[in-house]
Amino acid sequence: MFIVLKSNPDQERLNSLKEWLASKDIQIHTSEGASTTVLGLVGDTSVIDIDLIAALDIVEDVKRIQQPYKYANRKFHPDDSSIKVGNTQVGGGNLTIMAGPCSVESEEQLITIAKSVKASGATLLRGGAFKPRSSPYAFQGMGAEGLKLLSLAKKETGLPIVSEIMEVSQLPLFDDVDVFQVGARNMQNFNLLNVLGKQDKPVMIKRGLSSTYEEWLMSAEYVMASGNEKVILCERGIRTFETYTRNILDIGAVPVMKKLSHLPIIIDPSHASGKWDLVPASAMAAVAAGADGLLIEVHNNPEAALCDGPQSLKMHTFDYLAPKMLALHAFLKDLEGGKA
Amino acid sequence: MFIVLKSNPDQERLNSLKEWLASKDIQIHTSEGASTTVLGLVGDTSVIDIDLIAALDIVEDVKRIQQPYKYANRKFHPDDSSIKVGNTQVGGGNLTIMAGPCSVESEEQLITIAKSVKASGATLLRGGAFKPRSSPYAFQGMGAEGLKLLSLAKKETGLPIVSEIMEVSQLPLFDDVDVFQVGARNMQNFNLLNVLGKQDKPVMIKRGLSSTYEEWLMSAEYVMASGNEKVILCERGIRTFETYTRNILDIGAVPVMKKLSHLPIIIDPSHASGKWDLVPASAMAAVAAGADGLLIEVHNNPEAALCDGPQSLKMHTFDYLAPKMLALHAFLKDLEGGKA
Amino acid sequence: MFIVLKSNPDQERLNSLKEWLASKDIQIHTSEGASTTVLGLVGDTSVIDIDLIAALDIVEDVKRIQQPYKYANRKFHPDDSSIKVGNTQVGGGNLTIMAGPCSVESEEQLITIAKSVKASGATLLRGGAFKPRSSPYAFQGMGAEGLKLLSLAKKETGLPIVSEIMEVSQLPLFDDVDVFQVGARNMQNFNLLNVLGKQDKPVMIKRGLSSTYEEWLMSAEYVMASGNEKVILCERGIRTFETYTRNILDIGAVPVMKKLSHLPIIIDPSHASGKWDLVPASAMAAVAAGADGLLIEVHNNPEAALCDGPQSLKMHTFDYLAPKMLALHAFLKDLEGGKA
Amino acid sequence: MFIVLKSNPDQERLNSLKEWLASKDIQIHTSEGASTTVLGLVGDTSVIDIDLIAALDIVEDVKRIQQPYKYANRKFHPDDSSIKVGNTQVGGGNLTIMAGPCSVESEEQLITIAKSVKASGATLLRGGAFKPRSSPYAFQGMGAEGLKLLSLAKKETGLPIVSEIMEVSQLPLFDDVDVFQVGARNMQNFNLLNVLGKQDKPVMIKRGLSSTYEEWLMSAEYVMASGNEKVILCERGIRTFETYTRNILDIGAVPVMKKLSHLPIIIDPSHASGKWDLVPASAMAAVAAGADGLLIEVHNNPEAALCDGPQSLKMHTFDYLAPKMLALHAFLKDLEGGKA
Repeated sequence: MFIVLKSNPDQERLNSLKEWLASKDIQIHTSEGASTTVLGLVGDTSVIDIDLIAALDIVEDVKRIQQPYKYANRKFHPDDSSIKVGNTQVGGGNLTIMAGPCSVESEEQLITIAKSVKASGATLLRGGAFKPRSSPYAFQGMGAEGLKLLSLAKKETGLPIVSEIMEVSQLPLFDDVDVFQVGARNMQNFNLLNVLGKQDKPVMIKRGLSSTYEEWLMSAEYVMASGNEKVILCERGIRTFETYTRNILDIGAVPVMKKLSHLPIIIDPSHASGKWDLVPASAMAAVAAGADGLLIEVHNNPEAALCDGPQSLKMHTFDYLAPKMLALHAFLKDLEGGKA
Repeated sequence: MFIVLKSNPDQERLNSLKEWLASKDIQIHTSEGASTTVLGLVGDTSVIDIDLIAALDIVEDVKRIQQPYKYANRKFHPDDSSIKVGNTQVGGGNLTIMAGPCSVESEEQLITIAKSVKASGATLLRGGAFKPRSSPYAFQGMGAEGLKLLSLAKKETGLPIVSEIMEVSQLPLFDDVDVFQVGARNMQNFNLLNVLGKQDKPVMIKRGLSSTYEEWLMSAEYVMASGNEKVILCERGIRTFETYTRNILDIGAVPVMKKLSHLPIIIDPSHASGKWDLVPASAMAAVAAGADGLLIEVHNNPEAALCDGPQSLKMHTFDYLAPKMLALHAFLKDLEGGKA
Repeated sequence: MFIVLKSNPDQERLNSLKEWLASKDIQIHTSEGASTTVLGLVGDTSVIDIDLIAALDIVEDVKRIQQPYKYANRKFHPDDSSIKVGNTQVGGGNLTIMAGPCSVESEEQLITIAKSVKASGATLLRGGAFKPRSSPYAFQGMGAEGLKLLSLAKKETGLPIVSEIMEVSQLPLFDDVDVFQVGARNMQNFNLLNVLGKQDKPVMIKRGLSSTYEEWLMSAEYVMASGNEKVILCERGIRTFETYTRNILDIGAVPVMKKLSHLPIIIDPSHASGKWDLVPASAMAAVAAGADGLLIEVHNNPEAALCDGPQSLKMHTFDYLAPKMLALHAFLKDLEGGKA
Repeated sequence: MFIVLKSNPDQERLNSLKEWLASKDIQIHTSEGASTTVLGLVGDTSVIDIDLIAALDIVEDVKRIQQPYKYANRKFHPDDSSIKVGNTQVGGGNLTIMAGPCSVESEEQLITIAKSVKASGATLLRGGAFKPRSSPYAFQGMGAEGLKLLSLAKKETGLPIVSEIMEVSQLPLFDDVDVFQVGARNMQNFNLLNVLGKQDKPVMIKRGLSSTYEEWLMSAEYVMASGNEKVILCERGIRTFETYTRNILDIGAVPVMKKLSHLPIIIDPSHASGKWDLVPASAMAAVAAGADGLLIEVHNNPEAALCDGPQSLKMHTFDYLAPKMLALHAFLKDLEGGKA
């Protein structure tokens, strides 16, 4: 960490600052330039609150060099983490395909989709029981009833399940759920993260709509620092100025997370674009970029929901896409292998 | 609402859609162009889930015309709302100045600041007891103890208090708090909003880091639709590409909220810029733009916290700014009055 | 296009508007709802200036349905365009790899790199002679001298060349350049676009830092409407709130452009991330997403420039990446072929 | 500037780097921490190309401390600049009101508006002759003819004129224009900036849609470093995720520019919001924030243009707003004076 001082700082305050830093076992290297003096801090600066320093009258700027996360940091955990879910591993060279409906709507809907996605190659079943909706007038999910249907589908197909938890009080309902999903809007619900950090079950943290990489990893750090190191990251698109698609998939998040962290990273191409016809290209891109898996909505055919139309098409699309992704993953493994 | 159809839509599915809309008491006006057919929907389209329609195979685009919020909508509530807090009114032509420390740190700190800001012109005391921090290693606030100190300061000064609630389970601790603050990170914590909607106490909702006006008003709608119409909006800066300041204050939010809604709007210039020396200009701008009040951090002097330095300056700055804001507000009232 | 009227519009002005629309051969379908009246316009609305309509006192909102571009629009040109450059085609199922140094610095540097990238699989040589730099104190490129060296490298290797033109007056210097590159900062330099629209040579338009898809296609439209239909699109990352990488690669731009337009689309992973170690993952993702090509900086080793260090590594990295991209492209072609 | 090295850097390359820095008269202070070594550079680092350093294999990160601009920097020019335009000064405690039509359309329109805005309090006439439009099919302005009409209006009213120049070749047409306006889309048209830097006439630089403060000041630096120090900054709203208004006015740009630079800053509330009814609140906010002036579209009544309706209203609105702004400015001057 560097502290850039204002010109002619009050010496008394500067001494107070230096003493305070010394009391935290921080060594100080001073560089005096013609117009600027800089304190270089050496030691464990993760204990220093950067905002406190920045607010001091004698300070012009503070710049951090060390990353403020430890558990999630690849520097202190050089090997890739892989997380056991049911009989499968998320990370560790696998391509995990999580698929299922956005919202659980009925037993028939869920079982049909679950069987179909399993046959196509999915290894986890996703399904929303509690749905965060921006309007109080929109369908908020089936709640506890939805979680029961997910249990049923798990029994029927053997697929482990991942579902979103929105609040601490819902915890008892999630006994049979295999992976807690923390939604983008709750990425900085720190109370929820702390509690999930005390569970012995994987937690998949979706990146917030406009969260930086560092904030995202700090949310992982909340869970890990509370004792639960089974964290999976999920990129689901970020908010930008573009309005044609709901969000913009940040494909670069894959190599960035691989560089900064050892945690597995999943791509959700469905929320990223918000348009079904753009999902396949994004999904293939995610595999090629090196993602550890995909989270894909195989949806319960809105035509069906509204007008009793046939719902086969969407599952057909997934049935075409999933094997392509797996073939691509296998091809790339070979390609790397051939060079290594 | 308009539904733009794809060319040559499947007639059977189109009929299903039309029947379904009719079942919701929606009338349909069809416009057939050379290459595009559009259905104009007339009726209460707030019951229609726009995402469901957009996902239909036969649909190219859906555009909403009516706003999806009712309680918060100026159209259905043409007069400005004003909200009683203690002996003061937020809105209704007043300029409400909420001031106090970011975090409550000690009795002495809080009482000193509370007395000072009251003397300068503040009519509400703000103070954080529960602090959402992006790092699990940063100070998370004094919690319950902090709320007790706020009660004490309220008794001592008579100032009503506003403090952030982060989770439903904290509710019993907020008995003596006069205004619930919902932080930017919790703006879409819908469970929290629903519960606050059942309390008989004002709720101040901070705009999320990258929340649109509509999303913000929909969060107000959550509280209001649950039964609590005492909602105050608070703009605290949005996230953009600029990194020199922590956020960008969206001053236009004042006239926009005045146009779209009847709810009072408060500006928080402290979080908006994140730099103390930029606060006065932003605060004055907020008054001139027509804001109903300000939420200002009068802070507990970081020098003091770190190095026992004198903390008078920051309260002095506020003591200079608050009367200026009040004078400006009075001047503008006169100016408008002279023209009316 | 739809015009949503304010309630109780002035009838005289409404009639004027209707007559004016009729004079433009636009038919009007009126939908009257309980609280809103909407005019649906049928006809060639691309001649209507949406801002003029929106500014009318009687108008609440205007929504466009037809896209405002024609030449660039897939609707009116359903087949993919492919653009001849030298002996190669950009688009039409090929994967075009454009590679070379960011800035041309010397004959030796350029010839070395050109030969190397050709050997690795590149089919076009890129090189900057005029460099837009945000600082007036930074190196602005070799200018005319750089273009001469590019000609030399073209003669030496047979690779066609692409180079950025920043201003109309530079045109005569570009005689031997095969593809004009319009940089992100010049995407809306409409004078330049108009002049390039009168040349008989391909123009590659980089997307502006924060340009929407529509604005990007409208810039293509400028060139095409002026008579030059040989336009290539290039996505090079957009500006967001994230600061870890210089920009965010919008991989979704590939399927979106394939849907909205018939023009070939190239991905520039180098500028998108601004970090060399993130380029390979992004480049592979671009191929998997269906991009028509890549624009990659194979750089002149900053170590060499500064300190005379060995420069082989960077060309080695490209030599590893280029065949991988080509292998992936071939694999995906097979995969699609097998299903078709 | 700080250079953070990767762990265990190649010593030979490190030595080359150090020698190269020494050759530029840069002193190096080395801080060695447990896991990180940092080089603190002391001297005139504005000559160092930060991107070149960052790209070195042995470098993990580079952080700049000194600002990269000199002429525009308040540090080297502590007093506010004020720029003479006609008989008025932009800056120096004045409130300059620039008003007029977006596009010049006819002699009658322009003269009517010019006389009206002068009577209301405007001291400069703005008017667009060359109009950058995102569509090639939209009206591009009257061009040379429009500039002649502006000259006429100047003669008629005595108001100096400000008009946008889009390209170097238009320069001869601007003889009678008093202030060159560089539009947001051209803020990084470096060729244009260089040429305007050689003119003896004020240049008003609009901030780019998504330009940082630093980029904006670097564009001012281009003009100033070329010899023309008469630069005026103009904030006109930035692009964000919000779509209700065209842009978001960054009111904080006023105190930020006052802190970083000595140049006058003008606010354009018309482009910032894109909605006429939001302009007055933003304009008043700009005055209260300390802006040196306003650039306001007093428009040629779209009703008139389309349908021959009366155009008086818009000029009436300005006639109400301008005196209010001037009264506010006078009031604030008094207020500051009373305290000083």
